[in-house]
Amino acid sequence: MILARVTGEVVASQKHPSHEGLKLLRVQPENSSTPQHLIAMDAVGAGIGERVIVVQDGFAAMTAVNRPQSPIDCAVIGIVDSTNEI
Amino acid sequence: MILARVTGEVVASQKHPSHEGLKLLRVQPENSSTPQHLIAMDAVGAGIGERVIVVQDGFAAMTAVNRPQSPIDCAVIGIVDSTNEI
Amino acid sequence: MILARVTGEVVASQKHPSHEGLKLLRVQPENSSTPQHLIAMDAVGAGIGERVIVVQDGFAAMTAVNRPQSPIDCAVIGIVDSTNEI
Amino acid sequence: MILARVTGEVVASQKHPSHEGLKLLRVQPENSSTPQHLIAMDAVGAGIGERVIVVQDGFAAMTAVNRPQSPIDCAVIGIVDSTNEI
Amino acid sequence: MILARVTGEVVASQKHPSHEGLKLLRVQPENSSTPQHLIAMDAVGAGIGERVIVVQDGFAAMTAVNRPQSPIDCAVIGIVDSTNEI
Repeated sequence: MILARVTGEVVASQKHPSHEGLKLLRVQPENSSTPQHLIAMDAVGAGIGERVIVVQDGFAAMTAVNRPQSPIDCAVIGIVDSTNEI
Repeated sequence: MILARVTGEVVASQKHPSHEGLKLLRVQPENSSTPQHLIAMDAVGAGIGERVIVVQDGFAAMTAVNRPQSPIDCAVIGIVDSTNEI
Repeated sequence: MILARVTGEVVASQKHPSHEGLKLLRVQPENSSTPQHLIAMDAVGAGIGERVIVVQDGFAAMTAVNRPQSPIDCAVIGIVDSTNEI
Repeated sequence: MILARVTGEVVASQKHPSHEGLKLLRVQPENSSTPQHLIAMDAVGAGIGERVIVVQDGFAAMTAVNRPQSPIDCAVIGIVDSTNEI
Repeated sequence: MILARVTGEVVASQKHPSHEGLKLLRVQPENSSTPQHLIAMDAVGAGIGERVIVVQDGFAAMTAVNRPQSPIDCAVIGIVDSTNEI
């Protein structure tokens, strides 16, 4: 998993039927060397501006939103309260 | 998933039989630090120039085009209407 | 797998129910070209400052912590005693 | 998938038994920012110098060469006839 | 798969029980743009200094060492005899 910041939502009317009712979040990975963001399914009710934990694996992301037969490879699975860093 | 722009189509006559009837799109990831593009199976009828959502996982991509036993690792699964970004 | 250093812990109260009781570690990959760290589930009782082995695959990471239906893609699976390098 | 150029073959006598009879190709990804090449199993009879489509997923690559229990994560699955690019 | 050079071994006494009896190799990918190495399970009896083929997929790596329920995502699956490159 990685830490990221939620920076927006994505709306797509033309999409896979299994994505109905799910929220697509645009997240920016922390400390990334590039400005490339990820599009992640929201599994925890995360909002814009929140610091979150993102999983980047197909089966794991499908499991996070309980849709095992849906084309998903990335999901927000936690909202960070705090980190204890050296 | 990532956001990308469809920049072309790829034609291959010599290919895996399970790819028959599928459209291969050339997509350019947004904000990528390199000019490397991806080749993705089209699951939503996307056309050249459109901004799309791309999934990069084997099982997820196979599910997107409903071919669970086909060698596919990338698919276009949504056409972006709008993004709400901070 | 890669070698990494444990640099912290992450606390998230809003998370997937299957993550209850697991410890989330912040690890810094060795010799990485970027400052981006990873968030890994602890499977071996690793502590801050230790040099560890990290697995980055969904099924492998779930297996490491014995939670096959949990959204996890990264786990600490060993604590390094020594390396024999040329 | 990505586009790549076949730049060589690799011979390994010490290998996994399930690889017997398969051809290992050295391919150079197109537009890559680094000179790192990939080693891919040939599933379509590709030759040196040809422009090909490469899949980079374990299950997908195993499926491409019809060896579902073999350690393979990359395969050449198409030979490019033409691309239509903007 | 990628080509790499074996540059060392890693010893970890605190590890997943399923790793008992396996040898962990430190390998340096060829032509990599960064000095980051990988830790791979040895499936072919490779030694330090040898040029090898490395697979980077969970299921593929587990299959290589015949431990389908072990947290492994990388394995050495061949020793290179020669390459024929243009």
